[in-house]
Amino acid sequence: MKAAIITIGDEILIGQIVDTNSAFIAKLLDKIGVEICEMISISDNKQHILDTFNNFQNKVDLVLITGGLGPTKDDITKKTFCDYFDDVLVVNNEVLAHVTQIIEGFYKRKITQLNKDQALVPSKCTVLHNLVGTAPGMWMKKENTVFVSLPGVPYEMKYLVENEIIPKVVREYKRPYIIHKTILTYGQGESMVAERIENWENNLPEFLKLAYLPSPGRVKLRLSARGTNKEFLEKSIQENMTSLSKIIGDIIVGFDEDETLEKVLGSLLTQQNKTISTAESCTGGKIAQILTSVSGASRYFKGSIVSYSTETKMAVLGIPEDLIKEYSVVSTEVAKQMAINVKNIMKTDYAIATTGNAGPLKGDSNSELGTVFIALATPNEVIIEEFNFGQPREKVIDRAVIKSLEILRKEILKNV
Amino acid sequence: MKAAIITIGDEILIGQIVDTNSAFIAKLLDKIGVEICEMISISDNKQHILDTFNNFQNKVDLVLITGGLGPTKDDITKKTFCDYFDDVLVVNNEVLAHVTQIIEGFYKRKITQLNKDQALVPSKCTVLHNLVGTAPGMWMKKENTVFVSLPGVPYEMKYLVENEIIPKVVREYKRPYIIHKTILTYGQGESMVAERIENWENNLPEFLKLAYLPSPGRVKLRLSARGTNKEFLEKSIQENMTSLSKIIGDIIVGFDEDETLEKVLGSLLTQQNKTISTAESCTGGKIAQILTSVSGASRYFKGSIVSYSTETKMAVLGIPEDLIKEYSVVSTEVAKQMAINVKNIMKTDYAIATTGNAGPLKGDSNSELGTVFIALATPNEVIIEEFNFGQPREKVIDRAVIKSLEILRKEILKNV
Repeated sequence: MKAAIITIGDEILIGQIVDTNSAFIAKLLDKIGVEICEMISISDNKQHILDTFNNFQNKVDLVLITGGLGPTKDDITKKTFCDYFDDVLVVNNEVLAHVTQIIEGFYKRKITQLNKDQALVPSKCTVLHNLVGTAPGMWMKKENTVFVSLPGVPYEMKYLVENEIIPKVVREYKRPYIIHKTILTYGQGESMVAERIENWENNLPEFLKLAYLPSPGRVKLRLSARGTNKEFLEKSIQENMTSLSKIIGDIIVGFDEDETLEKVLGSLLTQQNKTISTAESCTGGKIAQILTSVSGASRYFKGSIVSYSTETKMAVLGIPEDLIKEYSVVSTEVAKQMAINVKNIMKTDYAIATTGNAGPLKGDSNSELGTVFIALATPNEVIIEEFNFGQPREKVIDRAVIKSLEILRKEILKNV
Repeated sequence: MKAAIITIGDEILIGQIVDTNSAFIAKLLDKIGVEICEMISISDNKQHILDTFNNFQNKVDLVLITGGLGPTKDDITKKTFCDYFDDVLVVNNEVLAHVTQIIEGFYKRKITQLNKDQALVPSKCTVLHNLVGTAPGMWMKKENTVFVSLPGVPYEMKYLVENEIIPKVVREYKRPYIIHKTILTYGQGESMVAERIENWENNLPEFLKLAYLPSPGRVKLRLSARGTNKEFLEKSIQENMTSLSKIIGDIIVGFDEDETLEKVLGSLLTQQNKTISTAESCTGGKIAQILTSVSGASRYFKGSIVSYSTETKMAVLGIPEDLIKEYSVVSTEVAKQMAINVKNIMKTDYAIATTGNAGPLKGDSNSELGTVFIALATPNEVIIEEFNFGQPREKVIDRAVIKSLEILRKEILKNV
């Protein structure tokens, strides 16, 4: 079963908004084994909309359309949708009652003609009732292709996809069985990972597909199986996951699709009943922010001292002036002392410290742009590493944050 | 001048990632008067890629393609791109030197064949040098249409679009004259702003277009003029900006397109030679992180104490245990004391403190989920405000951060 997604709206084409609807719809369809061939964004233009419909006619089984169903004059999707099927718009009384209830009952306003027009639908369409808004969904078939028009407001679209479309597709269409498994790796780049698993990848059976999803400092691998024999696919994917773990077990941090390094660290610290604090210079609080983005972080995260100025490093973190004078603020020695001191101040088991020059301006030191020292104080020792993350500024900060968390993870695992 | 954007990658079509590249590219092209006709996302499939290229051939002037340039097996864009032009891949020595420098110089690893292959480009293409990554951009013309292939990693794509493509299009193509003026407002929602400026908006001349760009806590308004008479357009846009400022001057914080509240604050603090520090509980360091995302922040930002636990609030920030016991950690009194203490510890002119319950779990207090107290210590006084930002967690944190910066801005302006 094949599908396409069309999003309609000038605001998408001028880059004013990012289309998040397509990804939402795709994820749910993919999960039930519907293959998305194409996502396309077009403007609020009648001919362009008709051409795009025509283009998918009889090429896919299902076309999902979002946007252009609002009450104002620039929203032309409904009229165009109706024209495509040579149909006429008629009032749907159930929708009219619902719209009236929302406007007069909830918003306490008198219903206007524009509001009433929301209840107009093509006479032959199947109405998908939108209980969270005023624009209904419309399901219509022409030859071998079903076209469904949905409102563009994300939560209204989501409501209709989850409650109307997915159940209807599951009931009415035959689909293959599909499984995805995600492997989260940290610490090695895409090409490095690819090289290590090259043989394994080359030996994957035809029905298993591997995808690389790299982002700074990490690579997610996704293994997908598609077919008809559920048990066979599950067994096969499990076997291949096991053999993969043997090859790159050292960089795998999790198997959950929504896994992140900060969540993994949260679980590790919680399990071991250990606590952490940070002393951040060049990362400016971002390590703290990422650690605290995980719900329940107060169980293991005590706090951070963001010492952005040399004065703060001395006054709040207690770094001796002599040490800074001798080695400069961006140095192994200062990073080490920052980690030791914040660990003592916050009374934690672990402490991360960062000091560096994120650029683009030279700071209080003569270090090269992009240089970062990361220190980790553990219950037994202090580890210090030096990096150069180049430029631009945001990359230096992001890489330093990820590296810090990665170093922390490795050390915690040593003490398990 | 017309353009289309193609994003390539199975991960987009199964909804695993949201395509943000298209909106970024569209925004920059729109600004220089290039009309985007279509955005399309397709899979890593050779025939599908070729069909899509063919479909745009001679229909648009420019096709921008992102994705599928990685070093791994599933990345087939470069080979397909080359085939489309009946060209062959050859090593570009400049790119090879750059890739070698990144791998061996920065990452201190031996360069592999996969890395080296990044330097292969179609023999007739114009190479767009990617100084922030290993995959180069490639610019090639066939008949009336230019095709440009770019890496899908957002910051690499951004670098090439900003530094190579936009300047090249501006140099080489005739486009209508277009001006955009941006007005950055904080503190009122989109519909509220729309209501206040309804009359003004209805009276705008035909050639002026207004766009709303809302994001949490702020609305950017963009006024665009398109035409041939530069002077006339500029005069007209200026007049309308002036009349707009009279209506919503109270919520306007800036007119620069890349303006952000943190940059505005940076300029204000620098101009007035004032300094700031933060004491953060529920915001977990995010205020510090946002303030330090601005280059040159070390001129005014001294540091932060992220006191995520009650112990840290007592031990590091010096909040009296009695105060916490009497009022709870999430209270006006504790927020106030946090702001006063961090201002003294960091010796700054201003200090922001946050304490609240971001959820979804109940923390060390009995306060409602979403409750946040924000305190601002100024040179003269301490202002404390209470909010309830509801749920989910990330919304509470984001809203608290923006509100804090907004309160700070208002107070600094009072003292100008």
